[in-house]
Amino acid sequence: MALIVQKYGGTSVGNVERIQNVAKKVAKFVDEGHQVVVAVSAMSGETNRLTALAHEIQEQPSRREMDVLLTTGEQVTIALLSMALQQNGYDAVSYTGWQVPIMTNDIHSKARIEEIDSDKIKSQLNQGKVVVVAGFQGVTPDGDITTLGRGGSDTTAVALAAALQADECQIYTDVDGVYTTDPRVVPEAKRLDVVTFDEMLELASLGAKVLQIRSVEFASKYKVPLRVLSSMKEGGGTLLISEEDFEDLDMEKPLISGIAFSRDEAKLMVLGVPDKPGVAFQILGPISDANIEIDMIIQNQSVDGTTDFTFTVARGDLHAAKQVLEKHAMELGAREIICDDTIAKLSMVGVGMKSHSGIASTMFKTLADHDINIQMIGTTEIKISVVIGEEYLEEAVQALHAAFELDK
Amino acid sequence: MALIVQKYGGTSVGNVERIQNVAKKVAKFVDEGHQVVVAVSAMSGETNRLTALAHEIQEQPSRREMDVLLTTGEQVTIALLSMALQQNGYDAVSYTGWQVPIMTNDIHSKARIEEIDSDKIKSQLNQGKVVVVAGFQGVTPDGDITTLGRGGSDTTAVALAAALQADECQIYTDVDGVYTTDPRVVPEAKRLDVVTFDEMLELASLGAKVLQIRSVEFASKYKVPLRVLSSMKEGGGTLLISEEDFEDLDMEKPLISGIAFSRDEAKLMVLGVPDKPGVAFQILGPISDANIEIDMIIQNQSVDGTTDFTFTVARGDLHAAKQVLEKHAMELGAREIICDDTIAKLSMVGVGMKSHSGIASTMFKTLADHDINIQMIGTTEIKISVVIGEEYLEEAVQALHAAFELDK
Repeated sequence: MALIVQKYGGTSVGNVERIQNVAKKVAKFVDEGHQVVVAVSAMSGETNRLTALAHEIQEQPSRREMDVLLTTGEQVTIALLSMALQQNGYDAVSYTGWQVPIMTNDIHSKARIEEIDSDKIKSQLNQGKVVVVAGFQGVTPDGDITTLGRGGSDTTAVALAAALQADECQIYTDVDGVYTTDPRVVPEAKRLDVVTFDEMLELASLGAKVLQIRSVEFASKYKVPLRVLSSMKEGGGTLLISEEDFEDLDMEKPLISGIAFSRDEAKLMVLGVPDKPGVAFQILGPISDANIEIDMIIQNQSVDGTTDFTFTVARGDLHAAKQVLEKHAMELGAREIICDDTIAKLSMVGVGMKSHSGIASTMFKTLADHDINIQMIGTTEIKISVVIGEEYLEEAVQALHAAFELDK
Repeated sequence: MALIVQKYGGTSVGNVERIQNVAKKVAKFVDEGHQVVVAVSAMSGETNRLTALAHEIQEQPSRREMDVLLTTGEQVTIALLSMALQQNGYDAVSYTGWQVPIMTNDIHSKARIEEIDSDKIKSQLNQGKVVVVAGFQGVTPDGDITTLGRGGSDTTAVALAAALQADECQIYTDVDGVYTTDPRVVPEAKRLDVVTFDEMLELASLGAKVLQIRSVEFASKYKVPLRVLSSMKEGGGTLLISEEDFEDLDMEKPLISGIAFSRDEAKLMVLGVPDKPGVAFQILGPISDANIEIDMIIQNQSVDGTTDFTFTVARGDLHAAKQVLEKHAMELGAREIICDDTIAKLSMVGVGMKSHSGIASTMFKTLADHDINIQMIGTTEIKISVVIGEEYLEEAVQALHAAFELDK
């Protein structure tokens, strides 16, 4: 017998029929002898309907009152799912965020969970009940209703799993797991059975948007085994665990877990800047001040007392970044500013990388064999990223996927 | 400066535009320097929508989960009304039932309010805020969500007014007050400025369904001045007060406040029953056992050792009552059972009746002048009721309204 926390998103509970399907899925685990806590989102469309009502009244509604309004969405779902379970003969009880209670700070619309009192839930589980909890919502010590912001229901599920010391937290989504890369680019892409939190964070932040980064960080911090599964298809999904747990599994660590990529990249080059201390800050500081995030940075070796800076930003920020540079970098005496929004970033991710040499050379050789020029290179402990021309992206991903035998 | 509790029902908050109108009405009182607490219902249609969702899942949903589901209705309204007030520049804060908290017992779907902690509301009022409270809902000591049953938002408003020792509780409805009789029958019917709780209970239970009886009883018990007004039309409405407060007003008490009537009546006569002790109970006991409510009862004087019983029931219960009688009364030796569903009941109501003689004789003379036969007579301290043929009802009401000069 295990204690399992499951999370179903808005699409999975989008109408009565789907809620009844979720009830059947939950029942299967109960039949197998497990204790189950279910966190659910608002029925899809409901949040938009409520937001539209609010915006008919106020352009910028009070965040406190928006939280009061929106949290009704999950409250409807928990009642309906509990009814569906009861209709099938399973004892179930619903809890809103404040009933658990899930205590948060008072930052309305993006509150952070501070504490979960799991006594009530444990007591209901021990009475043989399925506990259905409203995701996305909490309550402040003063008794104000809060919401957790985007992806909040995932966070609720992971936080509940941590508080209950659950054996597993299962996130049901519209994909059936985490893949070695995007199957639309590489049809041979394979679903990963296991991936570490750190790998997932690299894969997620680079475009494989299966889980909200915040909930992965949370799971990682509290070492909650997290499983991503499809709410439609059968299958074991992908299990996310810590690196230590991975080692305990006694499996051979793959060199590379997956290839992430992003087309949402643009490159800026500042050429011929006088090479003196502080110049990097003088160029990049104003970019940060404009709330533009900088990703990769390269500074060329100085030639004749001048140097070149190259960095990447999200493609949507290119225009704003260029305007900032034209004001500040030219004042510093830069010769020229060149922009390029036809680039892409590709990253090989894998915890096995740390203990194996030769990954980078195989990667670079593979790209060279395909005549693909590498414009920038960046590395972390478990990742090698390259910037290449956008037109080569698919070919590069396919070639590397084959070269590292990720389809095996 | 007064402390006023206002209640707006589902129709008054049925869409965004109407919610904005309610905000304007509330603002008017704030501008006049009053402190205002507003209790609101779910937007009209919302409760039906949610109930339909539940019934798609379960024929008889769990009452606990129905309460979780339905209370989202008012929660949406309190958020939207608070936003509308804020949009107009008024500081407002919303509270659900559990946030106040409004403590109830645990009888889901028809809970009774046991205690209201008014500290939070008072503190917000003293900070100059309008407090918007979800009607119809409360919370048990265990933290379960409850609803108060039909007319629950009226009860919430009256209970809040009692807890806050408010100067007045204003119930906004689709009528502009309590009338001397139904204006559809007597176009000259006049709106009453003041009526006592006891009179209102007699008028309400006889068909003038302006307020839920329970909220009037509650207001009477806690001596909360209650005002019924239209949410659409301007006007002072009708003030409901206790008889003592009425006396303090130093107004001349009217003999008769109003004429109530009901067509939902049927008469049963049990003829030729042996006149011996206990026979009334033997005839009427089985009727009560069948959950049929008996209204007026007459027993004729005994002749030749037998007597006749006549009593009235709601018209819908006539068939069931007849079946019970046929089984039991015939066993007692009754000669015949006669049913009549072409009757109506008419009641003159007024606290002034107690101290004035001659009301009954004027009433009977007026009916006699119109050749209207009285079939049964019943009296209480503040009411004289008669049963007459249904076909004479309108004529009788009009004649009595004129005879007692209720249009003056």
